[in-house]
Amino acid sequence: MSKPLDKQLAALQHRDPDTRFELSKVDPSSKPFSQGDKATDKAAVEKLAVRLDELQNLFWADRRYKLLVVLQGTDASGKDGTLRHVFGRMSPLGVHAVSWRAPTEDERAHDFLWRIHQRVPAAGETVLFNRSHYEDVLVPVVKGQLTAEQVRQRYAQINDFERLLSETGTVICKFMLHISREEQRRRLQARLDDPAKHWKFLLEDVEARRHWDDYQAAYEAAISATGTPWAPWTVVPADSKTHRNLMIATLLERRLRELDLRYPEGDPALRDLRIE
Amino acid sequence: MSKPLDKQLAALQHRDPDTRFELSKVDPSSKPFSQGDKATDKAAVEKLAVRLDELQNLFWADRRYKLLVVLQGTDASGKDGTLRHVFGRMSPLGVHAVSWRAPTEDERAHDFLWRIHQRVPAAGETVLFNRSHYEDVLVPVVKGQLTAEQVRQRYAQINDFERLLSETGTVICKFMLHISREEQRRRLQARLDDPAKHWKFLLEDVEARRHWDDYQAAYEAAISATGTPWAPWTVVPADSKTHRNLMIATLLERRLRELDLRYPEGDPALRDLRIE
Repeated sequence: MSKPLDKQLAALQHRDPDTRFELSKVDPSSKPFSQGDKATDKAAVEKLAVRLDELQNLFWADRRYKLLVVLQGTDASGKDGTLRHVFGRMSPLGVHAVSWRAPTEDERAHDFLWRIHQRVPAAGETVLFNRSHYEDVLVPVVKGQLTAEQVRQRYAQINDFERLLSETGTVICKFMLHISREEQRRRLQARLDDPAKHWKFLLEDVEARRHWDDYQAAYEAAISATGTPWAPWTVVPADSKTHRNLMIATLLERRLRELDLRYPEGDPALRDLRIE
Repeated sequence: MSKPLDKQLAALQHRDPDTRFELSKVDPSSKPFSQGDKATDKAAVEKLAVRLDELQNLFWADRRYKLLVVLQGTDASGKDGTLRHVFGRMSPLGVHAVSWRAPTEDERAHDFLWRIHQRVPAAGETVLFNRSHYEDVLVPVVKGQLTAEQVRQRYAQINDFERLLSETGTVICKFMLHISREEQRRRLQARLDDPAKHWKFLLEDVEARRHWDDYQAAYEAAISATGTPWAPWTVVPADSKTHRNLMIATLLERRLRELDLRYPEGDPALRDLRIE
């Protein structure tokens, strides 16, 4: 690596909504977290996934925090694959994934954070958002359905909402899976060509792809405005699936380790109890 | 094995609510599914867990069915451990675990199946119930809070409810983890003695243990009355954790294989599409 890892990482994270984050400066094919060849990195991911399961178990026992992981990215950027490879070793006991789709009529009749708030983690829980409330500052922006003032309002509403979550014990990790337009083409074509993946293919994805530059601009604006000290964004170079998994698993393991998790003290009165 | 496996299995399953299932005749320390020593069985569980992940992925793509797995058993019977070892390899994408606790005031203001119905699986989903609506024909029965007629009503209501789920595409697998009173004593004592497990210990568990025979009788009555062709019960000899995992994983793998799952056909119009 040409630069120390932490300096490279700083260039991929955004936590100051008063400054601009330049998405176009991030190379989707770079692999700052790679430790060597693909096999080495894959083995590291597998090891980290097992470690994350242990930490999640401790997180669940500790009950002082809640963990919210947000995965965003264009179609075929690897959200499902991240869920499988990074979180696939955790016990289903304390982990819940929520895949957000276009809002229903009932959901649209409320504010855009109404349905989101219902699914945030409880104490000890880990909740994984596969897409999220960030779709509400991407899709309608690209489709021109909101005024600039409405978009600014939504950014501020998101920041306030995430501050509430953070102040009440939620650790928030937001990852934007960043792939190149060419890598998306390869992956969508592969879905068409593979009978086992064909069902995942949606014509809407091709439609959204026509607006690639608009979506990149909407992402850049959203990341810039909603990367905060309490809920920073991390942009993950994701053309390499293995690198994507390795980077996310490494950062989550580090974040959980920082929390100094511990098993709760039991009731001292129980110490000498013998079960009959 | 002295008897062929399928004959032994038949003695552990109940699917006729007009006959009595005799729980006391099941030896909790027996291991009908064991293939040899513990290491062999553990390796088999690990292999099956990976296979179940593949099948669950296909189940999710197929979308014709919903899968509901119910885990019941006394305290320390191994419900959490089953979730971890049998389902711990599945991607969180299509799997959701629900741990049921004593109903809240709001939940008690509705019928006992109201909160349950809200959490049943959607098409393609796998939902794991850690405890379930069966608590409502166990705890209040042992505490004498229901008349015999009310209990009979609840059994029938459960059977009708599960028939609705079954007729609308839900595959229902109900497992009762059956441990001996002595094995429960060992496990509760271990929770007291191990600082990493102490937090799991609850005085209520000791209280419930005083009514061991009443709970066994309530289980026997409930299994007898609610083992149906559309939602059979399987009693799992569970003094051995490895045997418990192996038996459940084997039966689920078999059940999913029977469904003849397949990837959906894609839109033929898309066949020759090239992504630009």
